[in-house]
Amino acid sequence: MGDVMRIGYPASIDSAFLNVFPSEIELIPLPDGMAGTVDVDVWIPDPFSTRAVRIWPHLRGVRLVLSLMAGTEWIPATVGPHVTICNAHGAHNISTAEWTVTAILAMLKQFPLFLELQRASDWRGRKQATVAYQRMSGDASQLHPPVMLEELTGKAVLLVGHGAIGKEIERMLAPFRVQMLRVARTPRVNPQVHEVSELYNLLPEADVVVLILPLTEDSRGMIGARQLGLMRQGALLVNAARGPIVQTDSLIEALNAGHIRAALDVPEPAPLPPEHPRWRGPTLLITPHVAGSTPEFGPRALQVAADELRRYLKGEPLHNTVQLAV
Amino acid sequence: MGDVMRIGYPASIDSAFLNVFPSEIELIPLPDGMAGTVDVDVWIPDPFSTRAVRIWPHLRGVRLVLSLMAGTEWIPATVGPHVTICNAHGAHNISTAEWTVTAILAMLKQFPLFLELQRASDWRGRKQATVAYQRMSGDASQLHPPVMLEELTGKAVLLVGHGAIGKEIERMLAPFRVQMLRVARTPRVNPQVHEVSELYNLLPEADVVVLILPLTEDSRGMIGARQLGLMRQGALLVNAARGPIVQTDSLIEALNAGHIRAALDVPEPAPLPPEHPRWRGPTLLITPHVAGSTPEFGPRALQVAADELRRYLKGEPLHNTVQLAV
Repeated sequence: MGDVMRIGYPASIDSAFLNVFPSEIELIPLPDGMAGTVDVDVWIPDPFSTRAVRIWPHLRGVRLVLSLMAGTEWIPATVGPHVTICNAHGAHNISTAEWTVTAILAMLKQFPLFLELQRASDWRGRKQATVAYQRMSGDASQLHPPVMLEELTGKAVLLVGHGAIGKEIERMLAPFRVQMLRVARTPRVNPQVHEVSELYNLLPEADVVVLILPLTEDSRGMIGARQLGLMRQGALLVNAARGPIVQTDSLIEALNAGHIRAALDVPEPAPLPPEHPRWRGPTLLITPHVAGSTPEFGPRALQVAADELRRYLKGEPLHNTVQLAV
Repeated sequence: MGDVMRIGYPASIDSAFLNVFPSEIELIPLPDGMAGTVDVDVWIPDPFSTRAVRIWPHLRGVRLVLSLMAGTEWIPATVGPHVTICNAHGAHNISTAEWTVTAILAMLKQFPLFLELQRASDWRGRKQATVAYQRMSGDASQLHPPVMLEELTGKAVLLVGHGAIGKEIERMLAPFRVQMLRVARTPRVNPQVHEVSELYNLLPEADVVVLILPLTEDSRGMIGARQLGLMRQGALLVNAARGPIVQTDSLIEALNAGHIRAALDVPEPAPLPPEHPRWRGPTLLITPHVAGSTPEFGPRALQVAADELRRYLKGEPLHNTVQLAV
């Protein structure tokens, strides 16, 4: 290895977007399906982990991994303990928070049902919307005009996780005057963030439960039959975090029983096999892990990586370390 | 007519919701399909105008109409000039503003497309989302990861109309740091509201154009081929007001040409005949005039009507008059 630091990056990234990187480095494009071995000091893995995992055996000398994603759970097992790993902390905040608010609103407004009606050219289906509302809410009062969708304003929203994205979601929900409930690994005051053990007491208080916490051994399978059973009739579960935090079988049961609704950007397993029962049901919204895929995301993530790289070059403390090399 | 004021209301409204009315009146339920004639001083029309129009010939002595809706355009021609008409000013603000924000976000996030993919159990369709984004935006840059949806944050939003609902929409959009542009019949400063003639200059500046103005002879057909042609490539038109404000044929042309996207709670004609071409197209979201149909709406509208009725009984000035009896 020479004096110039060598940065391996996915060849699929248009080099026009790499001008945020410092000039005193060498940028090495790593094509998908590459052969042979290449020396790089710093590795920017492909955002698609399946591609990245294929690249890793072709790299030598990697000391630092700069992920463009927030979730890095696949990286330590791949690169081992002697490599420092940083994530793109902050790059997903806006896009993921926006997806979450969109998912909450779209479910409360029954957009999946109305899009089905539109697809069927069915204006009279408005009655279906009232029936669906009454079944989910358990509200049998005969309001006139008939109720076909719900308001977010005034609802109780439980954030499970209160990191940067959770705070961003809270900021976007402020105009709706929601009652905000929060649990996280680190309890805090002002605003009040409860410890995770309080989940059992808070789940029955929420109209909307948002999962926005990292996947760890503690959070894996954290939402199962007991937790779902504690949710209010017709409450909405939104998973904007990682699929394995929810126990799939229990979720499908709760959906089929008509107890809750759900919106998932991260179904489990992912990708879902076409015949998977998770695909079905009118009270379910699935997007295929797309929340962060906005035009602004790529440049933002590269900027975060470039800033971290500058600190690394200067020997300054890194900001977004998820694993320090041992 | 006796001393006690007689209030005719739609029999379809559960009488449990009428306890907000003053006690010194007589409440007369008016069933759909009623025969004969009944004396009432005040008429609360059925929220569905087709039903209300059927009731009117059976009423005698009406001096005041208290509509539960915001739009009252059908009432003057029905009841004539000698009856005062009030609307339910404010009762729709939250529900309609929420629908508008939901529609904007759902379209930017391509939820109609993702719901189609979910319906087809198609995870691989993510590529369709990228193609649809590129076609609409005209953005051909090869970002990686691929772009599949858009952010609202930082977009330019043009409000056409800046009454109570428009202001509420603006309040809900605040966390997204949008650049807000406004036109209305009455230009103002702080915040700047341009006169309607500025529409031609502002349309090319907006990523999202929201129609939230009353249907009048001035606004009928206000958005036609010329106005749609001035919109940005891929911009989104949201009609949360009244269908006839948009010229249907021109809108269908602009959608078919792939020039704009649209979200409509008030398609024209309404209801849409099943074979109408307006139903088609992946860049179009239609809901069947449901924005205001929330559980909170009915009680809120009845409260507005009850407050107006109290003022009427006391001889105080009315707040929500749309026509004064001559």
